[in-house]
Amino acid sequence: MATIDRTRRAFSIDETVALLAHTPATLDALLRGLPDSWIAANEGDKTWSPFDVIGHLIHGERTDWIPRARIILEHGEGRAFDRFDRFAQFAVSKDRPLSDLLDEFAALRRQNLEDLKALKLTESDLDRRGRHPELGVVTLRQLLSTWVAHDLDHIVQVSRVLARQYSDEVGPWRAYLRIISGQQG
Amino acid sequence: MATIDRTRRAFSIDETVALLAHTPATLDALLRGLPDSWIAANEGDKTWSPFDVIGHLIHGERTDWIPRARIILEHGEGRAFDRFDRFAQFAVSKDRPLSDLLDEFAALRRQNLEDLKALKLTESDLDRRGRHPELGVVTLRQLLSTWVAHDLDHIVQVSRVLARQYSDEVGPWRAYLRIISGQQG
Repeated sequence: MATIDRTRRAFSIDETVALLAHTPATLDALLRGLPDSWIAANEGDKTWSPFDVIGHLIHGERTDWIPRARIILEHGEGRAFDRFDRFAQFAVSKDRPLSDLLDEFAALRRQNLEDLKALKLTESDLDRRGRHPELGVVTLRQLLSTWVAHDLDHIVQVSRVLARQYSDEVGPWRAYLRIISGQQG
Repeated sequence: MATIDRTRRAFSIDETVALLAHTPATLDALLRGLPDSWIAANEGDKTWSPFDVIGHLIHGERTDWIPRARIILEHGEGRAFDRFDRFAQFAVSKDRPLSDLLDEFAALRRQNLEDLKALKLTESDLDRRGRHPELGVVTLRQLLSTWVAHDLDHIVQVSRVLARQYSDEVGPWRAYLRIISGQQG
């Protein structure tokens, strides 16, 4: 009997859409209604709080994923993507409650997934190439895969920021908590 | 003006309950309805899948957090906690659909938070000491803080397992994705 490799999946557009559709509700369930001090928590210096991350995700919906997919489909490698502003969220989010940001992220994601489905991408579309200003040649398939992993990376970040607030309070259990000790499993 | 330290929070029972109450809905939003192959995904060898993690959390609700809190309150350091079985979930979950496990986890967590509130813990209760079979003396405050961090650690794990399924598909973006490259930020 063949052993199934459970560590990798080949790209699937349907599975990608399913995963992307789950992110707004996941972050909403994790964050909405938490005390403000937890929403504003960070890991020191210029690290991001959960609040900052939601602003970053909103900016990505507006300027990164679908706009870059369209650049690939319309211009191929002939036009590099616009650079992504990793600090735009501080303007996007200023003085707004988290609940507003969560609602906006959910609405933008819904619309972007509609737009993605409307593109009716074929396998050969997914092989089309674009040009990233730093990484060089990338494919549409790689862009959409990255969208999924990027969402999950920020769910990790938000969870880690929250958990580390109790770094001192957990006492001896620190040794068992990879999220606090910094070890990856 | 004093700088506020946003990297640590002192333990608060109300905030702890708020955080613990968010976990079942977060994992539900992340996982319910995903294709089976993603639910069964892992990081190789004996690493856990999202499915395995939910079984582990169920077993924790049954045998770890509240039962250990009661041992501290009733026996103090006089009686060590029972050892936690880190493999019990394979029996708990066998042949059950994920939706069942998510429902059971949510119901157990709800009941456990009711039980926790009913204990009406005072500050001096939180200082009470118990004995962990490996870590030695721990306090009730440390146990409850660990419950929070443990939830978040498993949200991190599930998110990481999912993201890494596309480790190859993201191509050059791998360099930017800490969740795949393994670097912690």
